[in-house]
Amino acid sequence: MDSPLSFEILSTDGDARMARLVTPHGEVTTPAFMPVGTRAAVKAMGPDELWKMGYRLILANAYHLAVRPGEDLVHEMGGLGRFMGFKGAVLTDSGGFQAMSLAKINSINEAGIRFHSHLDGSPLMLTPESAIDIQQKLGADIMMALDECTPYPADHQRAKRSLELTARWAERCIAARTSTSQALFGIVQGGIYPDLRRLSASQIIAIPFDGYATGGLSVGEPKDAMREMAALSASMLPGGRPRYLMGVGTPQDLLAAVGMGYDLFDCVLPTRNARNGFAFTSEGPITIKRAVFTRDTRPLDARCDCSTCTTFSRAYLRHLYMSGEILAARALTEHNLYFYSRLMREAQAAIASQTYKNYSSYTLGMLGEGGDGMMGIKNDVV
Amino acid sequence: MDSPLSFEILSTDGDARMARLVTPHGEVTTPAFMPVGTRAAVKAMGPDELWKMGYRLILANAYHLAVRPGEDLVHEMGGLGRFMGFKGAVLTDSGGFQAMSLAKINSINEAGIRFHSHLDGSPLMLTPESAIDIQQKLGADIMMALDECTPYPADHQRAKRSLELTARWAERCIAARTSTSQALFGIVQGGIYPDLRRLSASQIIAIPFDGYATGGLSVGEPKDAMREMAALSASMLPGGRPRYLMGVGTPQDLLAAVGMGYDLFDCVLPTRNARNGFAFTSEGPITIKRAVFTRDTRPLDARCDCSTCTTFSRAYLRHLYMSGEILAARALTEHNLYFYSRLMREAQAAIASQTYKNYSSYTLGMLGEGGDGMMGIKNDVV
Repeated sequence: MDSPLSFEILSTDGDARMARLVTPHGEVTTPAFMPVGTRAAVKAMGPDELWKMGYRLILANAYHLAVRPGEDLVHEMGGLGRFMGFKGAVLTDSGGFQAMSLAKINSINEAGIRFHSHLDGSPLMLTPESAIDIQQKLGADIMMALDECTPYPADHQRAKRSLELTARWAERCIAARTSTSQALFGIVQGGIYPDLRRLSASQIIAIPFDGYATGGLSVGEPKDAMREMAALSASMLPGGRPRYLMGVGTPQDLLAAVGMGYDLFDCVLPTRNARNGFAFTSEGPITIKRAVFTRDTRPLDARCDCSTCTTFSRAYLRHLYMSGEILAARALTEHNLYFYSRLMREAQAAIASQTYKNYSSYTLGMLGEGGDGMMGIKNDVV
Repeated sequence: MDSPLSFEILSTDGDARMARLVTPHGEVTTPAFMPVGTRAAVKAMGPDELWKMGYRLILANAYHLAVRPGEDLVHEMGGLGRFMGFKGAVLTDSGGFQAMSLAKINSINEAGIRFHSHLDGSPLMLTPESAIDIQQKLGADIMMALDECTPYPADHQRAKRSLELTARWAERCIAARTSTSQALFGIVQGGIYPDLRRLSASQIIAIPFDGYATGGLSVGEPKDAMREMAALSASMLPGGRPRYLMGVGTPQDLLAAVGMGYDLFDCVLPTRNARNGFAFTSEGPITIKRAVFTRDTRPLDARCDCSTCTTFSRAYLRHLYMSGEILAARALTEHNLYFYSRLMREAQAAIASQTYKNYSSYTLGMLGEGGDGMMGIKNDVV
């Protein structure tokens, strides 16, 4: 079957690449960050705002949507993009991560994941086949295979068993797909063991997915291990297909991962941190509730031209945050997502002009490389 | 002293009038509804959105802002409009209503209102002089005199004592004003007693305010009494100055009050109800959480061209509301405020074309006149 995705690399610079990804719902220039829209909404944002910021691909969580409002309803409503009023493309995760982390009781066996809805406790079963069925009904442009996200820590034996199960589930996912217009990505596991990452990658790339993802990172492991595993996995994934580093990360992590040859990213950091009063700026992060901003007439980031920075002072944003106003969440989320969008646009331009290494070093210097590193936030929770 | 406001009546139709109110921060066409921005933010809305919907004058609460972030800070930041990033004008209430309704302990005497901050319990005193000082520092285009909002029920003697105190405070407010660029409105009280409404109006209009308000209504009294008192008060207020009916109300109430000759209105109904999942439509109100909307692909209101109605289905809005997404509050608030803005624009046009009576009857027929009537919501609370 022909891939529903076309992926054309336009420029490379070292391992980094700038590409055009064509989905059934439009083009995406990569490297690209995907805002997380857990329940078919990027928290506090409207679909038009995401579009204006340059986002053409967003992520939604199959687990949450299967539980409420249900994949059949979203299907009847014309699929996720139409349901949300978003003109671009949507990637869904498989639901496996949330079924394991959110559901009250669960067990994993060869068949799949048994769990209870976090909303009403009703018993549910997620299998490779049902994960694909749900995502097909949701109308995802890019679906993710059901994997077992290997926890951290996991010993070698546990991590091996996990990646083997993930590989068998990957075969079943490919076999279960019936839609010819929806892409499907496979996921590499392997914990923090180089031999297991290699083994998992070799198994997954043997399956004709439309793209490949590195999973099981940013789940609590040391930052060095995360970066080592991410780089190792990237080096084994086929160059001609999109590479997606799941659940990562900070601006610093994104710059590093782009340098490794990754194309797609998602993380709740810009959105969740915004709701906690945390803003990314070109000179490093700031926490808006600090008393030092009480009378600060400057914008969040003097180098930013987002609507938050061109309209509001730090003093006003602090007042909104301290008062619990919804507008605080909106304004900070918009700024943080704009920051991530601009970071990716600048990375694309730097790759196109063969200056990625300089751009990356300079930006890391401004942001502070030590900074926050991996924050261990993998997926949005309820 | 010349009034900082110019008020030019452009058309009349019966007692209704369409006018141009020129404030230090721009023009407002009346009749006009003012969205409530309690803490220097209309909940869930950005200042640009209010502007695009046609709002040129919004309300903020002096009590909340004096408690946090403090009037001195807002003054340093350039006043409310600049602080909020709103290009239009701002009216502030005096703080008296909140000092009485929100503060934990209070007592009223000739000097003013003694209360404790609802945030930290610190003792505060609001006098006519301090109410003006606070509002001047907040940079309000239109300030309100400190009044005692007569509670309902109140016997004749209590209501009379209250309006007499309000009149003495009104004199002190006028005397306390030092700013020549900020307008000040007086407030008529009198409970539900026609003779006391007449007495209060005669006392207040004897003071050279820039506009006159009817207060103490929509505080629990029967709807008929509210409308009778509103009409009586309007008939006594000078025609050449703006008339403001405080804290009222439903679309039906606004249409009735415009017919009485009122020019300005405020109410938390469109914003607060939106956050509770309640939408005004041209065919009457709907509650979005109802199961009947689960698969409803239609917009909230087929006759509405607001961004919510042109982007989202009822099914999606219901999903957002049931999921507790911030976007639900945003989308419903935007729709409701757009609905109120359009109602006022249509009323203006009907007055200009001498068809107000027909317009009002037709619209009341569509909305259902019996409907919700007065909802007893006077002011936004924490």
